[in-house]
Amino acid sequence: MTKGQNALEVCFSSKLYDEYKRQDTIVVVVDILRASSSICTAFMHGVEKIIPVATLNEAKKFKEKGYIVASERDGKVVDFADFGNSPHNFTREDIKGKTIVYSTTNGTNTIHMAKDCHQVIIGAFLNIKALCDHLNAANHDVVILCSGWKNKFNIEDTLFAGALSDCLLKSGSFNTDCDSVKASVDLWSLASNNPGEYIKKIAWLKRLGMTDVLNYCFRLNLTNIIPVFEKNYLIPLE
Amino acid sequence: MTKGQNALEVCFSSKLYDEYKRQDTIVVVVDILRASSSICTAFMHGVEKIIPVATLNEAKKFKEKGYIVASERDGKVVDFADFGNSPHNFTREDIKGKTIVYSTTNGTNTIHMAKDCHQVIIGAFLNIKALCDHLNAANHDVVILCSGWKNKFNIEDTLFAGALSDCLLKSGSFNTDCDSVKASVDLWSLASNNPGEYIKKIAWLKRLGMTDVLNYCFRLNLTNIIPVFEKNYLIPLE
Repeated sequence: MTKGQNALEVCFSSKLYDEYKRQDTIVVVVDILRASSSICTAFMHGVEKIIPVATLNEAKKFKEKGYIVASERDGKVVDFADFGNSPHNFTREDIKGKTIVYSTTNGTNTIHMAKDCHQVIIGAFLNIKALCDHLNAANHDVVILCSGWKNKFNIEDTLFAGALSDCLLKSGSFNTDCDSVKASVDLWSLASNNPGEYIKKIAWLKRLGMTDVLNYCFRLNLTNIIPVFEKNYLIPLE
Repeated sequence: MTKGQNALEVCFSSKLYDEYKRQDTIVVVVDILRASSSICTAFMHGVEKIIPVATLNEAKKFKEKGYIVASERDGKVVDFADFGNSPHNFTREDIKGKTIVYSTTNGTNTIHMAKDCHQVIIGAFLNIKALCDHLNAANHDVVILCSGWKNKFNIEDTLFAGALSDCLLKSGSFNTDCDSVKASVDLWSLASNNPGEYIKKIAWLKRLGMTDVLNYCFRLNLTNIIPVFEKNYLIPLE
């Protein structure tokens, strides 16, 4: 492990975030299946702003005001929503130049949870190189915050945390004494040759019908855009 | 993975235990460095009963009543305690046939947290084969509850969870759809050839001066005794 000046930590569940919370950190919010992958896809396809909301009640109020609403709970599209949480839903013709409202089981809550830190950005395999470059240049401590699944640890967010940590530690700008960083880097070392194959051992993906987006959500560097949370909106970081 | 009839889960932090809590489970409480290793050692050396207490206040009251008290916070022996949390402290001459009171930073709290389940037992590498045999015969769902370090994930409890899960899944009596089981089994597969060496990458062990007990706490099957929590005491399971 390298010995840079900024500290790197990984938090495996939004329920553990209080233990990692500090105002001067940059928090990378991760929900690989599928909120953070879908948010990156939406910006890649030209969305102007995303309003992430934690509750279905809030999402419904925005719908009544005429907003496009993307929303799921437990892997199912909510009845009043325009579409669900698959990155395949965020097509250029539907969202280019628009503001959309987004609410999911895990990921959108997690974004709000971290809002008091120095900067909240959205991480996915789709923008991992841009993230690594940004964090290396930023000169701040970093917490990679995995949304998990209903407060529990999940594999796919952990693999991403491992891949990003590996990149940051190799750059020399970060140090760590966080066991979650070390575990996620080691799990990523087992999976990195074929993460799609590794992840297929997860039974719940099949139950929730997410196998169609697995390979897509593990594709690397489709975009350089880093979504950042500012004044209750997600917008592209400049 | 095998498809037995009982469910197996791993919980990575006592702070996440609410998500796994069910009355009909057997909970294996783990705090490899060092509470669960020390408790197994104490029974191996003939202690009669251990009273695990969560707070220093309670421990002090027992001390005033004349009990032998073992207690640490953050790796340091508490001023009123007879000795600390190292398994090397629990020697036969000091504890054989006695009742001792025990309070640590993480592990003893975790025991109390799980008390409403079907059975709370104490797990360490020192008694892992006996645990595996007991759980295979018990016909109950199992949660392996890692104490972690101050609510955070830690590597050493996770490696134990992986080693025990591996044994239980290979026996054919358990099934799992828990990502933490899969991650801990994979981390154990990386470490199992030389867990003492693997664990040495953890910086905080050096800070807390625990390197002296590392190799001991990873020794396998020194005892067949399984400590069980009954009516506020730990006693050997019969």
